[in-house]
Amino acid sequence: MAQPKVNVPPMKDLTIDNITENTILTNSQCPDQRLTYLMERLVTHLHDFARETRLSTKEWMAALDFLVGVGQISSDVRHEFILLSDILGLSLLIDAINHPKPPSSTEGSVLGPFHTHDPPSIANGETISSDPAGEPLLVLCTVKDRDGNPIEDVKIDIWETDSSGHYDVQYAESKGADGRCVMRSDKDGKFWFKAIVPVPYPIPGDGPVGKLLGMLGRHNWRPAHLHFMFAKQGWDHLVTALYVKGDPYETSDAVFGVKESLIVEFGTVTGEEREMYGVNEGCKVLRHAFVLVGEEETDSLRDRNAREALEKLGRRVRLVEGLPVPDVD
Amino acid sequence: MAQPKVNVPPMKDLTIDNITENTILTNSQCPDQRLTYLMERLVTHLHDFARETRLSTKEWMAALDFLVGVGQISSDVRHEFILLSDILGLSLLIDAINHPKPPSSTEGSVLGPFHTHDPPSIANGETISSDPAGEPLLVLCTVKDRDGNPIEDVKIDIWETDSSGHYDVQYAESKGADGRCVMRSDKDGKFWFKAIVPVPYPIPGDGPVGKLLGMLGRHNWRPAHLHFMFAKQGWDHLVTALYVKGDPYETSDAVFGVKESLIVEFGTVTGEEREMYGVNEGCKVLRHAFVLVGEEETDSLRDRNAREALEKLGRRVRLVEGLPVPDVD
Repeated sequence: MAQPKVNVPPMKDLTIDNITENTILTNSQCPDQRLTYLMERLVTHLHDFARETRLSTKEWMAALDFLVGVGQISSDVRHEFILLSDILGLSLLIDAINHPKPPSSTEGSVLGPFHTHDPPSIANGETISSDPAGEPLLVLCTVKDRDGNPIEDVKIDIWETDSSGHYDVQYAESKGADGRCVMRSDKDGKFWFKAIVPVPYPIPGDGPVGKLLGMLGRHNWRPAHLHFMFAKQGWDHLVTALYVKGDPYETSDAVFGVKESLIVEFGTVTGEEREMYGVNEGCKVLRHAFVLVGEEETDSLRDRNAREALEKLGRRVRLVEGLPVPDVD
Repeated sequence: MAQPKVNVPPMKDLTIDNITENTILTNSQCPDQRLTYLMERLVTHLHDFARETRLSTKEWMAALDFLVGVGQISSDVRHEFILLSDILGLSLLIDAINHPKPPSSTEGSVLGPFHTHDPPSIANGETISSDPAGEPLLVLCTVKDRDGNPIEDVKIDIWETDSSGHYDVQYAESKGADGRCVMRSDKDGKFWFKAIVPVPYPIPGDGPVGKLLGMLGRHNWRPAHLHFMFAKQGWDHLVTALYVKGDPYETSDAVFGVKESLIVEFGTVTGEEREMYGVNEGCKVLRHAFVLVGEEETDSLRDRNAREALEKLGRRVRLVEGLPVPDVD
């Protein structure tokens, strides 16, 4: 790297009281206004955290080593920093900020670290789980707008664990994608598939995040759920999940994902359904209607929420493409 | 992991406005009061950061991927999270909080990511650098208390780059420790060794931290310096460095380490010194006296600073072994 010209204001003798403003000043050389604002808030909060806790050198070192561990256990199929974000409530918060929901639309939930980008495409009626120990579940869904009109050709990602509570990617020896698929809604907004009844499961406890939960005296269980992700041009991207009513972890999800409106009860297939979908008598059935929101409506709601929140915080910023940047005179 | 009993207060329907208090409540199951306080402040600042920036899903994901990268490039000889802490001004702040300095004592500076734990022990007068291209430097030091009394048998770590600005551990093919040593002060508090004149150098630019500096429009250079670390039972641990006067990066150190009191000028050896230390005519010499502070004095100063700062912040905490914990009635 060539030795660049020095163009920062002179800095020397930095102390507890002036390090923050000087770090922010140095970072304000950044040509990207949004990044400048992100760094200003990051440095302020990071330094305030250290000042308020009088963070010891030993704790600082332990935290940095913890973060190295979180990075090093991560891989193509395991994102331990997403897991960390999940258990700190950050993932829920990010989803709530970015995907505000007007009344009668389907609420969002946490993505989690186990979504993959290459699940098999299936047609309506196919089976997503090959687990013979799983209890069969017929899933009959529609996807609509807020006026009740069906939305066709929505790309839907679905993923769940096997009956032992593990996602396919958690097995050391990969047997290929299982318990996951991508499908598309038909012209009536319908999609249906065969799955297994989801079970509660612990999020990975063998890494730094599991160890942290242990130190905090927290359990690492998630209530039984099925993940869904909806994508179609012009509609707000929806990441959500359906939770099974009565689960022992319904009100203590390790990653804060449960919402009352996302809790479902299973029924039993009718005779007509048995015949139509080729399932056995007594098979459990999940019937659910998802409601998407138009992208413009979400964008305008998000902007309004941002303006209101930032005004309340008394911050001198303006929104550019929905995101705050410093309001420099 | 056995399925533990659920013992958290019921949580559901978490939102932008209630996720923080609920995450803190869940974490307050922690049996360790100090960790409870650290997590309370961490979660508060992390969530406030997201709320104030209206952090987008894309930015959140980019940040988590960045952190994975920081972890994955780290190794036994490269701690990229220390480097990240350094360029964010956090390392300087942590040192300032933990090692407050009374008047006339030697100030601290950043440790940096290149200290190692197994440098060779050398006796007074030995050479720490094998680099033939380096300009020879004779270093004559003493270590004293604030009253000017010598302190003997202090363990001193010293490390510097070679003349190309690289530490030994930065070479892919290790040639063993070079440019570093550990030595002990003699009964008069003296220690002396032969080194090379330090040069300015860029901190590693090939990892995520270097990339971030580039995005921020910041250079990644440190002014020329020699690292020193002093350890002796009963004395406050001192991590510091001496900086060369007139360096082009004297007032823009990428990691905020420079202090006026740590800037030194080199002299030229006297005839007597040439004979005594076996160096050539015209050899540069660095003469410096380091002043350590008693551990009790530092502890009491740190406690006083902490109490004053926390009182000013209006925080309901008390100090346990010098560190704030929640003040629960």
